[in-house]
Amino acid sequence: MPFITPRTFKGTRDFLPHDMRIRERITGIMKSVFVRYGFAPLETPAVEFLEILAGKYGDEADKMLYPLARKGGKELALRYDLTVPLARVIAMNPHLPKPFKRYQIQPVWRADNPQLKRGRYREFYQCDVDTVWSYEMMADAEIVALMADVFDELKIGKFEIRVNSRKILRGLITGLGFDEESEHKVCRSIDKLDKGGLAVVEQELLQYGYAKKSVVNLCGILERRQSGTKGLELLESEIPKSAALIEGFDEIRSLLDILSEMDVNEDKAVFDFAMARGLDYYTGPIFEVILPDRPDIGSVAGGGRYDDLVGLFSKEQTPAVGTSFGFERIHAILQDSPDFNPGGQDSDVDFLICFYSSEMRRDCLKITRRLHDSGIRAEMYFKPDKLKKQFNYANKKNIPFVIMYGPDEKAEGKCTIKDMAEGKQNTVELSKLQDAAEKIMESLNR
Amino acid sequence: MPFITPRTFKGTRDFLPHDMRIRERITGIMKSVFVRYGFAPLETPAVEFLEILAGKYGDEADKMLYPLARKGGKELALRYDLTVPLARVIAMNPHLPKPFKRYQIQPVWRADNPQLKRGRYREFYQCDVDTVWSYEMMADAEIVALMADVFDELKIGKFEIRVNSRKILRGLITGLGFDEESEHKVCRSIDKLDKGGLAVVEQELLQYGYAKKSVVNLCGILERRQSGTKGLELLESEIPKSAALIEGFDEIRSLLDILSEMDVNEDKAVFDFAMARGLDYYTGPIFEVILPDRPDIGSVAGGGRYDDLVGLFSKEQTPAVGTSFGFERIHAILQDSPDFNPGGQDSDVDFLICFYSSEMRRDCLKITRRLHDSGIRAEMYFKPDKLKKQFNYANKKNIPFVIMYGPDEKAEGKCTIKDMAEGKQNTVELSKLQDAAEKIMESLNR
Repeated sequence: MPFITPRTFKGTRDFLPHDMRIRERITGIMKSVFVRYGFAPLETPAVEFLEILAGKYGDEADKMLYPLARKGGKELALRYDLTVPLARVIAMNPHLPKPFKRYQIQPVWRADNPQLKRGRYREFYQCDVDTVWSYEMMADAEIVALMADVFDELKIGKFEIRVNSRKILRGLITGLGFDEESEHKVCRSIDKLDKGGLAVVEQELLQYGYAKKSVVNLCGILERRQSGTKGLELLESEIPKSAALIEGFDEIRSLLDILSEMDVNEDKAVFDFAMARGLDYYTGPIFEVILPDRPDIGSVAGGGRYDDLVGLFSKEQTPAVGTSFGFERIHAILQDSPDFNPGGQDSDVDFLICFYSSEMRRDCLKITRRLHDSGIRAEMYFKPDKLKKQFNYANKKNIPFVIMYGPDEKAEGKCTIKDMAEGKQNTVELSKLQDAAEKIMESLNR
Repeated sequence: MPFITPRTFKGTRDFLPHDMRIRERITGIMKSVFVRYGFAPLETPAVEFLEILAGKYGDEADKMLYPLARKGGKELALRYDLTVPLARVIAMNPHLPKPFKRYQIQPVWRADNPQLKRGRYREFYQCDVDTVWSYEMMADAEIVALMADVFDELKIGKFEIRVNSRKILRGLITGLGFDEESEHKVCRSIDKLDKGGLAVVEQELLQYGYAKKSVVNLCGILERRQSGTKGLELLESEIPKSAALIEGFDEIRSLLDILSEMDVNEDKAVFDFAMARGLDYYTGPIFEVILPDRPDIGSVAGGGRYDDLVGLFSKEQTPAVGTSFGFERIHAILQDSPDFNPGGQDSDVDFLICFYSSEMRRDCLKITRRLHDSGIRAEMYFKPDKLKKQFNYANKKNIPFVIMYGPDEKAEGKCTIKDMAEGKQNTVELSKLQDAAEKIMESLNR
């Protein structure tokens, strides 16, 4: 066989144990919150029919689909996100309880260009939480409260959940003289406000050919961006009332009321009329989570109500609201946090049992077995090397404790536990080894 | 947009919450064993360069690869198994601790024909556990002990781990007059013994054109199949000694010795010279787990030592030993087990808080919040429907307890907990609700 240079496709990654442990801690915390709120796990196939995926996200996204080479004339592609597969599942399973609340953590694939954009991947995990089949603002509020709990429990530091409504944005846009069809285009421009600043938004809107007066008025309002109640009052006093605006205000007031009853107050979730989200499919409230101390990062979660998308494959109205966590960004932020990255915990086991000598093998294996029976992570070294070599192995693998059991220890009915960080050794009665090991685990907060 | 009929590609599946919960319980138990033995998590990309995957599994397997349509001239395909990606990771990460012990649970893709073969999928999970960079039989024994613990803890019922050695098989095959090159072909035929019976093995070997005497002698030995020590003695007395045979016997005796020192005795793991495994790449001990009460199922795990495969992409010798659990088969068996499928546990939450009336919304939300703060799975109904409708929702979702809190309860400082299975209602002081809910959870063994 010719020698093949081992390499991975750009934009895809191996996750070695150190990274995997961080990722598993993050998903563990997220799942515990999702489950507490009554969201149930769902998984869908990586491979879908191309016709299911194509034409749902716009032309640019269609170019980013990864189609499979034809096999027997079938047109297949890799999943682009978790929302369209959810829409398909909903249409195929009308028997599901209504409302249906699901979470889904799986990779998606996009033929992006990771050379040009740092932190972009072609294969990356998405983490979505959605409630389908409910128009109630209670459902929207539950999603926002869940986002607050997730970021609280991840201990990610200061975060802010911005809340707005596409209906309010539509009222604002049409109230300033833009035509009705311009909603999505203008929203996508407003979405660039945080990254590019007001000048970029203004320039882009003028380039599109919108009336100068409308653009200037819109940018004037965006410049006087106010969050919370003041922002609501500003819009109410300056924008002509329209059906969309009134409905949007009602929804947002109801959403904020429920949130405050859920103890999610303005210090966590706040109305912000200049937050627009880039996606076209939102129809009502929209949400976005930012870290005020990390303006470089952009949003770490975002979502909203999208009452038309999930019904794509069914003939019935299918309202939905949900959020997507930026899993790869969250991983990138938390990988350096001491909570997710404690030196000691980044070991495969807590105890290495030395292979003292061939004669002691049986006894050392029994010690290993007894620790396993107590649920303690332990491995026995594979051969009777010099103890120094076995200690080196423990150090290389960050194993915090080494157990030695040789003929002298056996004669005394004792074994020796060495604390590799402190360098100290303790002698423990063999019959009390499990207790001692459990106590050590407690002291390590395992 | 034209209406698209929602459907999945044959051989792929959605996992709805009920199935997901069973799968998560299975992987939870497996991971707890893997971690206890010191195996660390690894994940690799779904998409690999075609040249990494092709030519590693034989012509038949190459036809089952799913290539991606060309994007910028890159030749890519979906992962076919977890072993070749491991070999690539090992070659690219020579700094990893030696030995490197990893587990990996991820889907793989094969262009199989699921119409023709029941229970076969095109997208399915594999679950692999491997130790790389050790020649010691301690490593092999650890894998066998881990398999025993996994099936014990899954409570899958009676299981038997069969152990053999490719070296013993080679000694047997060449000792009976087959030429040395025939080892893999003859092993693949012997592998059909359990499914097809002796006649199929004999017919296939004769069709291949092997000498009748050799075939008849081999089948004679297979007919007198003996397990354990008796099997070893049978081979020793009847087959001419060769280097391969002697080495094989030594390894197997050492492996069985270590296993017995690990308390994995003949009732769990037994030598069986008629077990051959179908894959070509094994070089030493091989293992297979079968369920004696489910002969229809075939093996539920299998593996062995393969000292040449993992070194494919590196220039150094890279010994390895491991096992692959038949995750989809294990799911199929356990999905009907009461341990994995308890009615009550298959609910999204344990408590539904009724939406009593608009005036009571704030109070009911506070109750929900308090349960969440205790880590209890609870959801509040989304609108003030009639109680009967809210009870129906709880029943449809298998929610075992419903909490009611109306103006009367509020006046008394109490709330009502309804046990949906028993139909009984209890009144609890509101200040003691968390205690009461925690007690209920304990009684349910959550």
